[in-house]
Amino acid sequence: MYRALLSAALFITAANSQPLQSPEVSPDHRVTFRISAPKASEVTLAGDWLGAAPPPKLTRDDHGIWSLTLGPLEPSIYIYSFTVDGVSIPDPVNPRIKLRARTSASLLEVKDDTPAFWEPRDVPHGAVEINWEHAKTISGETRAIWIYTPPGYAKSTRRYPVLYLLHGSNDTAAGWTTAGNANFVLDNLLAAGKLVPMIVVMPFGHATPFGVPVPPGGVTNDALFEDYLLKDVIPTVESHYRVAPGRDRRAIAGLSMGGGQSLRIGLGHLDLFSSVASFSGAIPGDFETRFASILKDPNTTNQNLKTLWIGCGRQDSLFPRSSNLADLLTKYQIHHVFHPTDGVHNYTVWRKYLAEFAPLLFR
Amino acid sequence: MYRALLSAALFITAANSQPLQSPEVSPDHRVTFRISAPKASEVTLAGDWLGAAPPPKLTRDDHGIWSLTLGPLEPSIYIYSFTVDGVSIPDPVNPRIKLRARTSASLLEVKDDTPAFWEPRDVPHGAVEINWEHAKTISGETRAIWIYTPPGYAKSTRRYPVLYLLHGSNDTAAGWTTAGNANFVLDNLLAAGKLVPMIVVMPFGHATPFGVPVPPGGVTNDALFEDYLLKDVIPTVESHYRVAPGRDRRAIAGLSMGGGQSLRIGLGHLDLFSSVASFSGAIPGDFETRFASILKDPNTTNQNLKTLWIGCGRQDSLFPRSSNLADLLTKYQIHHVFHPTDGVHNYTVWRKYLAEFAPLLFR
Repeated sequence: MYRALLSAALFITAANSQPLQSPEVSPDHRVTFRISAPKASEVTLAGDWLGAAPPPKLTRDDHGIWSLTLGPLEPSIYIYSFTVDGVSIPDPVNPRIKLRARTSASLLEVKDDTPAFWEPRDVPHGAVEINWEHAKTISGETRAIWIYTPPGYAKSTRRYPVLYLLHGSNDTAAGWTTAGNANFVLDNLLAAGKLVPMIVVMPFGHATPFGVPVPPGGVTNDALFEDYLLKDVIPTVESHYRVAPGRDRRAIAGLSMGGGQSLRIGLGHLDLFSSVASFSGAIPGDFETRFASILKDPNTTNQNLKTLWIGCGRQDSLFPRSSNLADLLTKYQIHHVFHPTDGVHNYTVWRKYLAEFAPLLFR
Repeated sequence: MYRALLSAALFITAANSQPLQSPEVSPDHRVTFRISAPKASEVTLAGDWLGAAPPPKLTRDDHGIWSLTLGPLEPSIYIYSFTVDGVSIPDPVNPRIKLRARTSASLLEVKDDTPAFWEPRDVPHGAVEINWEHAKTISGETRAIWIYTPPGYAKSTRRYPVLYLLHGSNDTAAGWTTAGNANFVLDNLLAAGKLVPMIVVMPFGHATPFGVPVPPGGVTNDALFEDYLLKDVIPTVESHYRVAPGRDRRAIAGLSMGGGQSLRIGLGHLDLFSSVASFSGAIPGDFETRFASILKDPNTTNQNLKTLWIGCGRQDSLFPRSSNLADLLTKYQIHHVFHPTDGVHNYTVWRKYLAEFAPLLFR
């Protein structure tokens, strides 16, 4: 490592050949993946756009460089990793990393020919602030909360509404920023006059150690995360930021595991939240009994809930959970938006859902 | 990937055994590293505390789990990676990643028994804000700048002095935060009354593509980064933040490559900076000719330079560069602090240097 750091320090001036490039995106949006692994006997690719297909194999050349060209791919930011002789790893030469709660991977960006709704455009940019707070609810751990403030926030004196935006399982508080580009999605909507300026709060959704089984009778992640959100995150945000008060100025949305959390926490606390969304959500199996009181009083519920928004990709294995929930809400006459689209379980879909849902808020 | 995401989503409830743990730090500060690689024939460990020793080998058990126990280690945050049959990879199960410009690695934290000067203590915390700006100097790329604001910044109306804090080669704008814990170092100094509250600006130090040779006659990284810092970063910071004006309220420091950049840019622009520091710096070989005018007029230089601070670890192969620079400055009667310490080329040293240097500023 020490020698690697030193040789890296000298690399820029000493290098006399082009280093291995991966991923390489060609103008027609085809992508070539490469890894140097001379001693490996098999290298495969996992990618979040590949659906349930078997992982494609890379081919070795005479120098031990494995490669594979795929696509063209729809412009997006994708998550991928290599599996080298059974060990799943990020792409060693790609600096863009998708942090995960346990096994990190790499990010592939296929840019659109003109900057897409999720790409940085030449518009004012908000900032994403990492705030650390001692969490009273999680054994005193100091936890990071990522918080988007819109352009102009620092120089304004107004108070802003807040969207709590939750990530999926095995993701982190950084996910909506580094893979979701939520900040650029919102910057672009704001510049187009389509969004009420808002603060977006992205906490870490794993309150119990990820991947470690909860002992029988122990507190589940969903229960502890709810406690953390209500007793740590919201008070921190409301004391540190210029936040508009009241449930009308507070919304909650999330993807996958975070979609389930948003429904549980949002519908369970309509005194705190007025709009709720689930993107490809891991929707609680006990929804009908858990929210019986809400379902059985549609008049009150419809008055309280400004927006209840359910989106899912039809090629996502979680799709039946969302469509069943939409059917259930229809049966009980609860107003909602059901937004089925094409797509699998990835940020390509979630970025679009954020761009659909956020403009509905705080009107 | 798709199936991996889904199985991860179900993992918390379905898992019935403890997952592989790595790194595992025991109460006596010994550390066990583990990786599951049943088909591998050799696994070694690289660690930024290991100096020039040959990389130690892990041992395989009957289940294909490779492991190694080292230490005890001095409490710190270290960078490490595995090399599996020649492929350098981060620890697959460790969520803490050291982002690099090209090859990411893992972070190991050995906590002190009571929180050390670089650990989060129960004190007010500043925030680190990620700001994106269209860089006019670097082909219009949108680049992230990480900026620390001290506790109380948002609610204050005062203007703050600014330290520009640069990272090393093959590091990123995130390095001083995720590996250096610069934010916690400064929070703790502030809480102890040892620091003038300041904004700390951490830009990305690679302006040309990392690892790609500069063509003959092309603009070097150091030249382009200087242009980027002066024409993009400083104007962005001064328009977005409440910054105290003038050279007396501006300092520049950096580690390794960033130490060289700090000397070049700081001493090259004494109209802009009043204090300069190099931590284990890649000090320019042409220092004596490049800064002849500064060296030959010690009275003016000593009047202009409030602090010129040079630190390096004696076990760092770059040590002679720092000690030679200190000798040169002495020869020309330029006031400076030379701070040689024990230590190799890592953040264990740089965190200490930041804690020594920052309290000298803006008095």
